[in-house]
Amino acid sequence: MKYVYLFSEGNKDMRELLGGKGANLAEMTSLGLPVPRGFTITTEACNKYYADNKQLSDDIKKQIIDKIKELEGITGKVFGDVNNPLLVSVRSGARASMPGMMDTILNLGMNDSVALSFSNITNNKRFVYDSYRRFIQMFADVVMELPKEKFEGLFDKIKEEKNVKLDTELSAEDLVEVVNKYKTEYKELTGSEFPQDPREQLIEAVKAVFRSWNNDRAITYRRLNDIPSEWGTAVNVQEMVYGNKGDTSGTGVAFTRNPATGENALFGEYLMNAQGEDVVAGIRTPQSIDTLKDVMPECYQEFKRICNILENHYHDMQDMEFTIEDGKLFMLQTRNGKRTCKAAIKIAVDMVNSGMISIDEALMRVEPLQLDQLLHPNFDEEKLKNGKVIAKGLAASPGAATGKLCFTAQAALDFAEAGEKDLILARAETSPEDIEGMNVAHGVLTVRGGMTSHAAVVARGMGTCCVSGCGEIVVDEDNKTLTTKDNTVYHEGDWISLDGSTGLVYGEKIDTVPPTISGDFETLMKWADDKAHLEVRTNADTPKDAKQARLFGAKGIGLCRTEHMFFDEKRIFNFRRMITADTLEKREEALSKILPYQREDFEGLFREMAGYVVTIRFLDPPLHEFLPHTDDEIKELANSLDMSFEDLKTRVDSLKEFNPMMGHRGCRLAITYPEIARMQTRAVIEAAINVKNEGLVVKPEIMIPLVGTLKEFTYIKEIVVDEAKKVMAEKNTEVEYKIGTMIEIPRATLISDKIAKEAEFFSYGTNDLTQMTYGFSRDDASKFLKDYYDKGILESDPFASIDQEGVGRLVDMSVRRAISVRKDIELGICGEHGGDPKSIEFCHRVGLTYVSCSPFRVPVARLAAARAAILEEKDII
Amino acid sequence: MKYVYLFSEGNKDMRELLGGKGANLAEMTSLGLPVPRGFTITTEACNKYYADNKQLSDDIKKQIIDKIKELEGITGKVFGDVNNPLLVSVRSGARASMPGMMDTILNLGMNDSVALSFSNITNNKRFVYDSYRRFIQMFADVVMELPKEKFEGLFDKIKEEKNVKLDTELSAEDLVEVVNKYKTEYKELTGSEFPQDPREQLIEAVKAVFRSWNNDRAITYRRLNDIPSEWGTAVNVQEMVYGNKGDTSGTGVAFTRNPATGENALFGEYLMNAQGEDVVAGIRTPQSIDTLKDVMPECYQEFKRICNILENHYHDMQDMEFTIEDGKLFMLQTRNGKRTCKAAIKIAVDMVNSGMISIDEALMRVEPLQLDQLLHPNFDEEKLKNGKVIAKGLAASPGAATGKLCFTAQAALDFAEAGEKDLILARAETSPEDIEGMNVAHGVLTVRGGMTSHAAVVARGMGTCCVSGCGEIVVDEDNKTLTTKDNTVYHEGDWISLDGSTGLVYGEKIDTVPPTISGDFETLMKWADDKAHLEVRTNADTPKDAKQARLFGAKGIGLCRTEHMFFDEKRIFNFRRMITADTLEKREEALSKILPYQREDFEGLFREMAGYVVTIRFLDPPLHEFLPHTDDEIKELANSLDMSFEDLKTRVDSLKEFNPMMGHRGCRLAITYPEIARMQTRAVIEAAINVKNEGLVVKPEIMIPLVGTLKEFTYIKEIVVDEAKKVMAEKNTEVEYKIGTMIEIPRATLISDKIAKEAEFFSYGTNDLTQMTYGFSRDDASKFLKDYYDKGILESDPFASIDQEGVGRLVDMSVRRAISVRKDIELGICGEHGGDPKSIEFCHRVGLTYVSCSPFRVPVARLAAARAAILEEKDII
Repeated sequence: MKYVYLFSEGNKDMRELLGGKGANLAEMTSLGLPVPRGFTITTEACNKYYADNKQLSDDIKKQIIDKIKELEGITGKVFGDVNNPLLVSVRSGARASMPGMMDTILNLGMNDSVALSFSNITNNKRFVYDSYRRFIQMFADVVMELPKEKFEGLFDKIKEEKNVKLDTELSAEDLVEVVNKYKTEYKELTGSEFPQDPREQLIEAVKAVFRSWNNDRAITYRRLNDIPSEWGTAVNVQEMVYGNKGDTSGTGVAFTRNPATGENALFGEYLMNAQGEDVVAGIRTPQSIDTLKDVMPECYQEFKRICNILENHYHDMQDMEFTIEDGKLFMLQTRNGKRTCKAAIKIAVDMVNSGMISIDEALMRVEPLQLDQLLHPNFDEEKLKNGKVIAKGLAASPGAATGKLCFTAQAALDFAEAGEKDLILARAETSPEDIEGMNVAHGVLTVRGGMTSHAAVVARGMGTCCVSGCGEIVVDEDNKTLTTKDNTVYHEGDWISLDGSTGLVYGEKIDTVPPTISGDFETLMKWADDKAHLEVRTNADTPKDAKQARLFGAKGIGLCRTEHMFFDEKRIFNFRRMITADTLEKREEALSKILPYQREDFEGLFREMAGYVVTIRFLDPPLHEFLPHTDDEIKELANSLDMSFEDLKTRVDSLKEFNPMMGHRGCRLAITYPEIARMQTRAVIEAAINVKNEGLVVKPEIMIPLVGTLKEFTYIKEIVVDEAKKVMAEKNTEVEYKIGTMIEIPRATLISDKIAKEAEFFSYGTNDLTQMTYGFSRDDASKFLKDYYDKGILESDPFASIDQEGVGRLVDMSVRRAISVRKDIELGICGEHGGDPKSIEFCHRVGLTYVSCSPFRVPVARLAAARAAILEEKDII
Repeated sequence: MKYVYLFSEGNKDMRELLGGKGANLAEMTSLGLPVPRGFTITTEACNKYYADNKQLSDDIKKQIIDKIKELEGITGKVFGDVNNPLLVSVRSGARASMPGMMDTILNLGMNDSVALSFSNITNNKRFVYDSYRRFIQMFADVVMELPKEKFEGLFDKIKEEKNVKLDTELSAEDLVEVVNKYKTEYKELTGSEFPQDPREQLIEAVKAVFRSWNNDRAITYRRLNDIPSEWGTAVNVQEMVYGNKGDTSGTGVAFTRNPATGENALFGEYLMNAQGEDVVAGIRTPQSIDTLKDVMPECYQEFKRICNILENHYHDMQDMEFTIEDGKLFMLQTRNGKRTCKAAIKIAVDMVNSGMISIDEALMRVEPLQLDQLLHPNFDEEKLKNGKVIAKGLAASPGAATGKLCFTAQAALDFAEAGEKDLILARAETSPEDIEGMNVAHGVLTVRGGMTSHAAVVARGMGTCCVSGCGEIVVDEDNKTLTTKDNTVYHEGDWISLDGSTGLVYGEKIDTVPPTISGDFETLMKWADDKAHLEVRTNADTPKDAKQARLFGAKGIGLCRTEHMFFDEKRIFNFRRMITADTLEKREEALSKILPYQREDFEGLFREMAGYVVTIRFLDPPLHEFLPHTDDEIKELANSLDMSFEDLKTRVDSLKEFNPMMGHRGCRLAITYPEIARMQTRAVIEAAINVKNEGLVVKPEIMIPLVGTLKEFTYIKEIVVDEAKKVMAEKNTEVEYKIGTMIEIPRATLISDKIAKEAEFFSYGTNDLTQMTYGFSRDDASKFLKDYYDKGILESDPFASIDQEGVGRLVDMSVRRAISVRKDIELGICGEHGGDPKSIEFCHRVGLTYVSCSPFRVPVARLAAARAAILEEKDII
């Protein structure tokens, strides 16, 4: 088995084996671009390392050492040779880009004797010892897992002693002192000398990179991004080029187009006299790539030329790393650049217009979930005008965010757990450890770091608004304060707002308004609708939601949850009267009071969705959800119901259930109290007739929830049909309607042929179906699912994306059975999965006819439906 | 469509169409036995009646009237003819016998003018008016549904006025008075005259019988006996013969063998000068059939002759009704007699021995569930000797019952609902309305009624102990007292005991001892084991249970629930320490305290089950079940745990779940706390080694509960295998064990092929599987399942017998998948269904290898397994 490939042996299609970085380094090499030479240790080696219980086999070690010899032959440099030393970088590179999640080591091959002679050869002692101290620091951190702060502390102390602010101000002798202090510290912490043998350094570094595949932040990142742990990471070993060699050296990162807006213009930053990590770490604020035009015009032109080659070659916007050593440009990485949704759409549409890609390719270029970024509210322009601006930073990731201040990722998580959704995370700078906190925050504010700092890159990837490099504020994470120029102090929990498109920070809550679909976005959505087979409907309980969804392109309502309508203050009283009634007569009387409200609700929905289907689910939740539970509230209600406290308390208690999720709810309610179904039928049909009489087209569909046996359905269907007939006779108007059911009980999937004989449509309620199929209560599972993720038992949340192996199999069986007896049955999905792109792919594949999702997910679903059709044409799903 | 058949047109194989009674009347007719002539209206007519919205179609009416004309032709008697009137009985008769559940009307055709002239013709006015008053009373009750008490009250009042005790003491004129009073009362209650047209009487009576198919007690009876409502009932219309014609007339019921003991001797009762209902209603205490030998020797010999013909013809013990009219014997019914389990076994074994039936037939003659009767405890003979006898009645249904007194069926139901299992129902006499109360009671005691009274017949059918006709006590149902001869008064809730084999009543609680299997029972069980393919294991958590099960023939333990072992006072403290520990170390320390107990438990089980498999399920229930919930208890526990109240309370609260059935339990516990699985593995393997070292054969099987994904299983399997290896190395002894899983999560059935690659056995936990597949929480569903039964949505409890259409389909799929990857996989079932004969049939059919049930169900399961094999051979399942 070949575990190590020279760059010249690979190409861009080998990313599974070589990782993205390795495959692209190989590709650039074969394009003849200036890439420092090197080789890649494969992902298979990583998997073998784990299969061998975290041991690097002798075979792999030998292949690495052999490849080093080859590299020595090619470069003419030799590992550990004091006259012509070979130094290398060691970088991770998985199949999918996981920025900052795993580890990198630079300047490997350095040791005491190399440093000494190399200083003489290069006549640049400062550069050599700067490289050596960086190497020790990275090696100590990454390989030995020693506390970073110890080394950073030593470094800061020397800077203080020497009274300098920037690293670059330290002299060669200062850096020799740093190296000595580092080595002493290293010995103190490990009990051993810093390793001097480059081969030993290399093997340990490779193992450390493999190990880093399973560090906590990598695991979290994979879970958030659905990356399987089986992929493993490759390791790239590459001859060093030095951006820290002096003032004609530097290093930078750049995109071929603007990753925030999509504008077709070079976008990036660089730092002179620096090594790779300095730029992204955000320690020194780097300069815009445009200034390179003046600083090093030839390098700039060369770089522009390479950008064009790469974009034309990859047919996509590129994200590149480069280093300039003594005025010569080297490419260290290229990859398809991460971008905001806005940029992704603009780039895709531009590229279609310029003939670079097809419409199908354009649709595949925008991740449906990314659209979410564009669907979040914007600031209300009126309110914004008078907003109190307290600072300005870099517009690192667009969007509007308003929320409560948190100063640590943990604080953000704690707030979120307590139910607070509107959060802003403010940090001096972010690091990969902050990723979970960034994930729950609406916006991120950092004091340090540029447009390509960790905070900016990750925030853009997540579609989270970000203002970075906001140097005019002081963030004190220990005391949890944010202090502005004018010494105003904000504390944890105070409201601030961020505008990620202008970089402005506001010291207050600013109201937001819903977004709209227009321009390139609209173009893309039209392309999507032309392509998709699945129709997209929405889950909406109010005319307001229905209207929003229709603006977002929903073709009907797939789920209207009638129970939400009962919580209104005016209605809940009568609803409670109904629940607590002890006779049919009293229940019917209370229901008759609810009828007009319910009818009015439905009229509103029918009007907003004129011409489209409105699917109305009958009462679903257990009745106790509508009743108060504390004695005081019960007393109050008893008073207004003219019941004794004891009677009401008994009634409330009698409705309590051990496992309400599997209790008296759904169609089971209508079987006990058919009069509820009768009232709801009347409300639907009366509303439909009224709106029809206004001249609008109404398409009501009545949906019976939680059916598990055929007789449950037919029992309620009879009531519905009977009452609907009555209403139509009374009003002397016919109106067409359908009656169907939710398939959300595993048993229903097993007898779907029987049910489909009676039901005109099915809507898969995969929330409940997942609960029952896994035996996971959504309300409780979060407590132990963390252990499941940590121990690799589950890789993603089955409530977020449909479990195709289990739940999906039931849905698939059900679809086959249903179609076998009713060819034209409408088949949809209305759980959370209806807005999840992966689940939508699944829905397309098994042959559903529509998906229904929350209004703000409608565009996501439209795009996902189109992509599913493309993937099927390509035989990928 | 032919809806009405003369008896001469049918035969015994037409019971689906003619009902049991009709088919057997036809069969007896064709055997040439003395059967009054008549016809049967089919069950199809009943179903049409319901399909037509409870209307009797003109077609059916016409066929009935036509058949009456034929009957008039055959008998020479004419409906309503004053010279030669035709009177008929109208009786229900369903496919399965449902004694007393539906209605009967006698003497139909009687009216004022018929009564007048018939008195002259027969010269027996007394008899004629006795017949008329009976007819009015039955018609008022059954057809018009008027309150019975009104008519009974009038009758009792006249008896009082005339100062007589027995009906037979009333004179002809008294009865004329009764008839007049009845007619007046009838008019008052209905507003109409009592109908005089016999054709109208008949049509109304037929409708009433059809209607009675759906009265409450019939519905309950069907549910308890698994009789589908689609069967419907037939109606038999038969020329009257009169047992109430005077002293050479009478009526009775008899069995060809003793239905209580199985003894091969005629057994029955009769009453002279009486009509049918008088015997079974228990109003007058009838005489033993043996005395008929002396009273009417010819009739007796003729009856014995007929008994022999019938038993040889049907190859089974017969239960017959007969009437003697003026010294001539008529047969009114024959059917296979209901019998106690003891009798069923004796009769089956005797009939095999006499060559009348085969062993397979014998196995099919004993209903497995009936065995339950023999498996209930008997009185401890020692304790019985000193028992305080307070009365003696008839030994109507054998067995020993001790329990709290209830005086109404409702009281028994209330007690049962409150969790009281030991109940005795004491009634003056029982009626069909009491059936649900009898069902929950251990024993039934009646003041009136003989060996064939309602109480006796129903109790024997249910296997419930019964002492009937205990005339020496007074039961006052209003004041809820039972008073003995010596004026001792017992109240509701007082303990008494009944011996159904001696008829003795004890005024106290008497301890019972477990039963044993011997004699004919043992013979039958051996035949069963020879026939069965399924192995029968037991669910047992203690050596005591294991021992009992082995006595009952269990071949191993299919389910040992380890959690039950933690509730012991000595252990629960350490278990609670484990639960509340906040570090791994503390948890491990607490577990180490539990280990010795757990090991000891397993040693006990291995010893009792030496040579057989012992399947041990790892910890299953959610942890909060082990913790106290009231503040006081929490305080106490906090003290002994040396924790603060607040900390413990927080911990207790954090373990609460919304839907614990789908929460943190089963294998999910071991994933969070692998150390629990480790301790349990150690306990199993150490115990196995210790018992093996005693020279016994141990076969431990470790069962992981609630697995839904492959990785859950493999994660825990790794721990088990690792720890087992360690223990064996420490002890330097190898012991074989298997590791498998419960399949109880729907998802597990869908990926059974994957799981079976890793698991050596599956045990289907159909309790949980039914919960999840239906989405029914067992703890809550009872609240709404009543509505489901009442409305015909479910006909039986899916937790009692496996739902073959839904849950069964999942099991079937799972079995196919499992066998496809592991041919020799052990497949069992360990939920409640493991002891249910219908479910066992299912298990046999889908190819399981064993069933596991509670110790007292083991013989039931052994017989059911044999019957399943027979049914399969006959191609019936």
